[in-house]
Amino acid sequence: MADKVLKEAERQREANEASLSQLGSLIYEQIQNREFPWIMMQSRSADNILFDQDLRQFILGDRTTRRHSRNVRNIRPFTQFLWTAWFARELIRLRKTSTLREVYYSARGQRDIEFKGQDESDYTITDLEVALNRPREAFNIYPKDRGAIFGDLTIEYTFPPAYEGQTKNLTDNPDGAPIGRSLASSKFLETPADKVIVIEKDAMFSRFVEENVHEKFNALLVQTEGIPSRSARMVIRRLNQDLGLPVYIFTDGDPWGLHIAMVIISGSAVAAHLRGLTTPDAKWIGVWGSDVQKYKLPTENLTEQDLKRLKEIKADPRYDDELWQREIDIFLKMGKKAELEAFSAHGLTYIVDEYLPAKLESL
Amino acid sequence: MADKVLKEAERQREANEASLSQLGSLIYEQIQNREFPWIMMQSRSADNILFDQDLRQFILGDRTTRRHSRNVRNIRPFTQFLWTAWFARELIRLRKTSTLREVYYSARGQRDIEFKGQDESDYTITDLEVALNRPREAFNIYPKDRGAIFGDLTIEYTFPPAYEGQTKNLTDNPDGAPIGRSLASSKFLETPADKVIVIEKDAMFSRFVEENVHEKFNALLVQTEGIPSRSARMVIRRLNQDLGLPVYIFTDGDPWGLHIAMVIISGSAVAAHLRGLTTPDAKWIGVWGSDVQKYKLPTENLTEQDLKRLKEIKADPRYDDELWQREIDIFLKMGKKAELEAFSAHGLTYIVDEYLPAKLESL
Repeated sequence: MADKVLKEAERQREANEASLSQLGSLIYEQIQNREFPWIMMQSRSADNILFDQDLRQFILGDRTTRRHSRNVRNIRPFTQFLWTAWFARELIRLRKTSTLREVYYSARGQRDIEFKGQDESDYTITDLEVALNRPREAFNIYPKDRGAIFGDLTIEYTFPPAYEGQTKNLTDNPDGAPIGRSLASSKFLETPADKVIVIEKDAMFSRFVEENVHEKFNALLVQTEGIPSRSARMVIRRLNQDLGLPVYIFTDGDPWGLHIAMVIISGSAVAAHLRGLTTPDAKWIGVWGSDVQKYKLPTENLTEQDLKRLKEIKADPRYDDELWQREIDIFLKMGKKAELEAFSAHGLTYIVDEYLPAKLESL
Repeated sequence: MADKVLKEAERQREANEASLSQLGSLIYEQIQNREFPWIMMQSRSADNILFDQDLRQFILGDRTTRRHSRNVRNIRPFTQFLWTAWFARELIRLRKTSTLREVYYSARGQRDIEFKGQDESDYTITDLEVALNRPREAFNIYPKDRGAIFGDLTIEYTFPPAYEGQTKNLTDNPDGAPIGRSLASSKFLETPADKVIVIEKDAMFSRFVEENVHEKFNALLVQTEGIPSRSARMVIRRLNQDLGLPVYIFTDGDPWGLHIAMVIISGSAVAAHLRGLTTPDAKWIGVWGSDVQKYKLPTENLTEQDLKRLKEIKADPRYDDELWQREIDIFLKMGKKAELEAFSAHGLTYIVDEYLPAKLESL
């Protein structure tokens, strides 16, 4: 098994590196043809971001844009783009990982290409994602670790090199395994679990682990620590697509909770250029507005900001579905919201003993 | 070994429970003596918080304050206090953990004692800490998980019950083990490491793991994710006091980095009522103002807020020491700051290959 997984990981690294080499060759060719080098990519301006009903995510439209080096004003960003591509190839070649911030500071050590600020550097990395149609994680540029996973899932590490081929079962740490670079780049080998339960926050995740939800409900547990990082979204997608597990999402019953669920399901407009980050079949199963009423949860009033956000969400194409619209209307009508912890009013384990099984049953 | 560790953990639980029972007995006695029940505790108003030069932390002075139930206005907070003590005992008895937020919502399920907001509930829990001279973690009330640990340290779990007596070596996950409730309540059995390196942020922690700092420098690595949680501070203290390991702290070279280091070393004024959270012998070893100059790091200008904070810090009794004063003056004079990632300007691994050994050597 180990051998096959590592070969696949190596093949993937080679493909990622090849995409960067091809970019380099293209530029060389242009120079040899005595052209000022340029590169064409899809435009990601707001009017070229569309919602695709089949994919159930935002995508980029047909408009393209060109980065070129024909005049003095353009030479600097074009050179920054090439340096970033070079740096990405170095990361793959040396098998090092990095962060957006480290890339920015690495550029500050170079002459003549220094970025004005990290915004500019981040923008250039997104250019690279669009140009090569790959997420920056393919070039070993990772976000801050956020979120954790727990349950009977056996994984095999492909990174860092010292851990290559090692396997691990994720029940081994009751605090959960962080969704870090090694977990995100590991292969998910096998699990007896038949579902994934995603919880938006740390405290409730600890409650679920403590109450043995993974055993009682034969589930893998993922916590996203708020809006899920891209790594967490990829992990959830892989659990769904590679292992065939249905995904159920629990969030606070407020517009921010709805948003967290939707980012998992359909992604966001800023990632319209990427595939592989969404889980269209994942289900948001609570806390619904109707749950707040049914379970007589302690509530807080919706703030002005909450109301504004709920109205935006209601008009957003991603929420154009009977369930979402019904629940958004209930929240608006109640003028109330409730957190996952609100179930503690009925006893600390009520959420696990009563609410969770009732919700899973109702599906 | 396992047996001894679990017995010690049980003895600790019993002592914590006994302190709550004693509180209850005291109240019963008062009622039997036909007194309106009351309880005396140290005042934690600002003018009763003093810096103790021997302990090198803030402590509460001699002034005391009384919570009583003699008039109508006081009955509600006194009842809340007793309910909180009862709830804490239930947590210990049932071997459940909880969070400040869950305690707040649990109270909302009760008649007549409901808190106006979480502030009030948190304040009452702090009252309990002061009254019984124990941190809330002793009553299984935990903060949000934050931070992680990595390296050749063998621990034995004492919580949750299903993991009791299981041991684990913390090199087994290259993403690190989260400093969660199980880690925080585990016993640290043994390590061949001879030092602890604390890093304030996730990204640099990943860099250190990736570059095998734990092996090259025979170190345990802890990352605090910014200002360390109380659990993280207790873990660092235990590594220092129980295992006898010196602790070295790396932070960003800015007033917030200084503050993070100092919270580990001497704690904060809000925890003046507690012992066991500080590591007075821990050393802040970078990024110093003089490092910024020596290593020609890319910098940002200090903002108005940074300058204000630096001046506050300069006058703070915790920083009354030659090294701190010298470095604060250098920052003020430069008007500049630098992050840990700034070393990337000299190459991604420069911080590990050059800076870290030079700093450890210089001690």
